[in-house]
Amino acid sequence: MSKFWYSKYMIIHSNKKDEIIDITEDIEREIKEKEIKNGACLVFAKHTTCCITTADLDPGTDLDFLEAIRKILPKINYRHPHDPSHTPDHILSSIIGPSVVMPVKNTKLSLGTWQRIVLVELDGPRDREVDVIFTH
Amino acid sequence: MSKFWYSKYMIIHSNKKDEIIDITEDIEREIKEKEIKNGACLVFAKHTTCCITTADLDPGTDLDFLEAIRKILPKINYRHPHDPSHTPDHILSSIIGPSVVMPVKNTKLSLGTWQRIVLVELDGPRDREVDVIFTH
Amino acid sequence: MSKFWYSKYMIIHSNKKDEIIDITEDIEREIKEKEIKNGACLVFAKHTTCCITTADLDPGTDLDFLEAIRKILPKINYRHPHDPSHTPDHILSSIIGPSVVMPVKNTKLSLGTWQRIVLVELDGPRDREVDVIFTH
Repeated sequence: MSKFWYSKYMIIHSNKKDEIIDITEDIEREIKEKEIKNGACLVFAKHTTCCITTADLDPGTDLDFLEAIRKILPKINYRHPHDPSHTPDHILSSIIGPSVVMPVKNTKLSLGTWQRIVLVELDGPRDREVDVIFTH
Repeated sequence: MSKFWYSKYMIIHSNKKDEIIDITEDIEREIKEKEIKNGACLVFAKHTTCCITTADLDPGTDLDFLEAIRKILPKINYRHPHDPSHTPDHILSSIIGPSVVMPVKNTKLSLGTWQRIVLVELDGPRDREVDVIFTH
Repeated sequence: MSKFWYSKYMIIHSNKKDEIIDITEDIEREIKEKEIKNGACLVFAKHTTCCITTADLDPGTDLDFLEAIRKILPKINYRHPHDPSHTPDHILSSIIGPSVVMPVKNTKLSLGTWQRIVLVELDGPRDREVDVIFTH
């Protein structure tokens, strides 16, 4: 069986300080265009104040998620010299993580019915660089 | 070196609302049956109210983990219209994440001595769909 | 296109109970030595009291991160029989996760400007076993 490697560099634009952005369709479009049948897909955010995960996106769950993760963090005096006010953005990004790896089956992401791939923006608005890597 | 791709679709059954389920042996069995020598293994839960990670499973650590993650979340009025009571299940699943990728070496998962692959059920009992993908 | 698989077993030494260790250069060195051009890199910690993620490492952000994650956990009476005092180490490791997968492009990790790969030590000082797997 032969191997195919495909890498796509995407720019995802955010509009708010904190925001959940559904990037599922951006990735599905690449899978279809490149006719990637079965494999794995890595989505990786090249940043330290945003992160990638999967989520349910019923109306309001994005704001629930953002409010909850902000309130999880303790009130401490941050040492970060560059800008202490965005230390929590760094911490949450490291906890949630910069990437997700998903299966691709029959030219589709193998996600659950309500499962979406999201970029969690924690220091927007910004243009975010996201690498999408397929191997199959 | 030739490439081999193998995909297994598993159903994992949970019995409680919150439960840690050790799925290490289910995955080790596949590795042995398919004689996958060296590679990587992706375990991916196709859901938004359960997650996959690795854990120590000394007696009681499962209940410690479940109690701790429930108490991490702040008490807020969730907006989620479908069922606000399971919004925390969604949030914890997105923080912990739907998947783990592990090395396979000499037809075994390359885990630490006490390290187990677990499905963290947060809205059981249910049958959970888990994709297991091997590439080598 | 041919496939290349390369696995490196590293020992990372920690010096404190809680410590962030930047392992980016250890991994970059392997990529250069083995001339891995384009692919993916899996970094996996074979332990239940340390974890792998990416982070901003401005001076002080390591201590900010460690203080914050310790204070996130609730005060509960842990059941863990072996040593209840390091139950929080296990819980945080499972939440943050044992691994990260990153793109490799043009014989370099495709990271953001300030993004570093870190081992988060939560029960040091210890020698930590880390698997680094490249596929391309």
